[in-house]
Amino acid sequence: MPDTQHPDVDWTFGIHGVQALLDVSPQDVRRLVIADGPRNRQVSQLTATARAAGVRIERVPRQALDRYLKRATSGRSDSGGVVNHQGVAAERHAFAPSTEPDLEARWPSFEDPLLVVLDGIEDPRNLGACLRTAEAAGADAVLIPRHGSAPLSTAAAKAASGAMERLFVVEVANLARRLGWLQAQGVWLSGGVEDEAAMTYTEVDYRGAAAIVVGGEGRGLRRLTRERCDHLVRIPMTSTMPSLNVSVALGVLLFEAVRRRSE
Amino acid sequence: MPDTQHPDVDWTFGIHGVQALLDVSPQDVRRLVIADGPRNRQVSQLTATARAAGVRIERVPRQALDRYLKRATSGRSDSGGVVNHQGVAAERHAFAPSTEPDLEARWPSFEDPLLVVLDGIEDPRNLGACLRTAEAAGADAVLIPRHGSAPLSTAAAKAASGAMERLFVVEVANLARRLGWLQAQGVWLSGGVEDEAAMTYTEVDYRGAAAIVVGGEGRGLRRLTRERCDHLVRIPMTSTMPSLNVSVALGVLLFEAVRRRSE
Repeated sequence: MPDTQHPDVDWTFGIHGVQALLDVSPQDVRRLVIADGPRNRQVSQLTATARAAGVRIERVPRQALDRYLKRATSGRSDSGGVVNHQGVAAERHAFAPSTEPDLEARWPSFEDPLLVVLDGIEDPRNLGACLRTAEAAGADAVLIPRHGSAPLSTAAAKAASGAMERLFVVEVANLARRLGWLQAQGVWLSGGVEDEAAMTYTEVDYRGAAAIVVGGEGRGLRRLTRERCDHLVRIPMTSTMPSLNVSVALGVLLFEAVRRRSE
Repeated sequence: MPDTQHPDVDWTFGIHGVQALLDVSPQDVRRLVIADGPRNRQVSQLTATARAAGVRIERVPRQALDRYLKRATSGRSDSGGVVNHQGVAAERHAFAPSTEPDLEARWPSFEDPLLVVLDGIEDPRNLGACLRTAEAAGADAVLIPRHGSAPLSTAAAKAASGAMERLFVVEVANLARRLGWLQAQGVWLSGGVEDEAAMTYTEVDYRGAAAIVVGGEGRGLRRLTRERCDHLVRIPMTSTMPSLNVSVALGVLLFEAVRRRSE
């Protein structure tokens, strides 16, 4: 029986999710699991797609799928809201981010890179939306701390619309130390905050090597991260309370950086 | 028995959601419904809050709550992912948007208003995120078509973080006609699109009366909406495919408008 708690394995349940996965990245699918019993046209379509892509197909009792779903969703906050497997599931390799040695190896190829640092985004959908935004703005790399961040899970991947796999996502053990390393490479760090005292985000010149740093929902930047930043910037809001989703705030900051860098 | 399908009634289930609702807007709660049986400390806390706020409290068999939840979630795509009522539910008045006569009545009080038009956002969480973004940018009004848009439901309200109740949200019967009316009032309409041929969003002068118009996920602006716009603008992206969440795209456009208007 597969170990659905295994950290390197992830599950996608339901006809639409599995079909999308098979269409977009069949190479990530270890096997397609189908419940015994009469199969409908949609399931036949799935198995045809899987077969064409060379994906292994297994038939199991429906109760086994119930168990996989239960186990896969019980230990996690990011089941993506799936409550019915519809008789199909795909077991896939979980997304493996790049490492800090990867970053250092690739560094010499960067020219005035635009980086994104996500300091502890806790909601997988927000994490995915941030990755999607980072890709749209042309970020060269996204740094994510190993601890205190939502997992790079199926729910995050879904919200990222493919950006997770296409982006250079680097998992970092000690974020403050890595930010120091970036500064030593000449990167200017702009951290998004909500303090009235911070400078307006449009006052910064984002040309050259630059990183946009945003913190988790509610909590914002952690103290050590904040202290590392060269600028603390805020988005002026007219509402009575600070209220931008973190992926929206990241988008506003990033596209302002893109605008300035293209001047 | 309450009619959970009634369009003017909405339900919030679960301890945290109900507690938040009672804390933030007890006046919207018609009654608190508690399942029979032993009550824990959290439920006692809820009833104390409700009693202090003058909210009616009713005890019902647990099965009745099961039925309410089932009915409330079966007809909708926006149950907010709630699958367990935890023995508590709050029945509340659904959000009632403002009307077109309200807009016309309030119009003379506006001075160079900044408006947002959401042309058929289909996901309630995206709709809520757009409202939250609109409020943060100081939009004077948000126009939403009556048909083809996600409902102004609990899930949307949750994603809006209070913006739905605080904003001037106007439901519009015929959007193209209302856009024509806005133009007659001197409003310039900038519609967000993904066409390579469109002008870059930073080329527009958003000063004066201005509206930012964004379309639904995937589909974009509807033809009649698009034809009404004075400018079609795009956010230049470096990724291979257009990929910004609609609330992020709205944030980028709106805060550029805010930046230009404050120059």
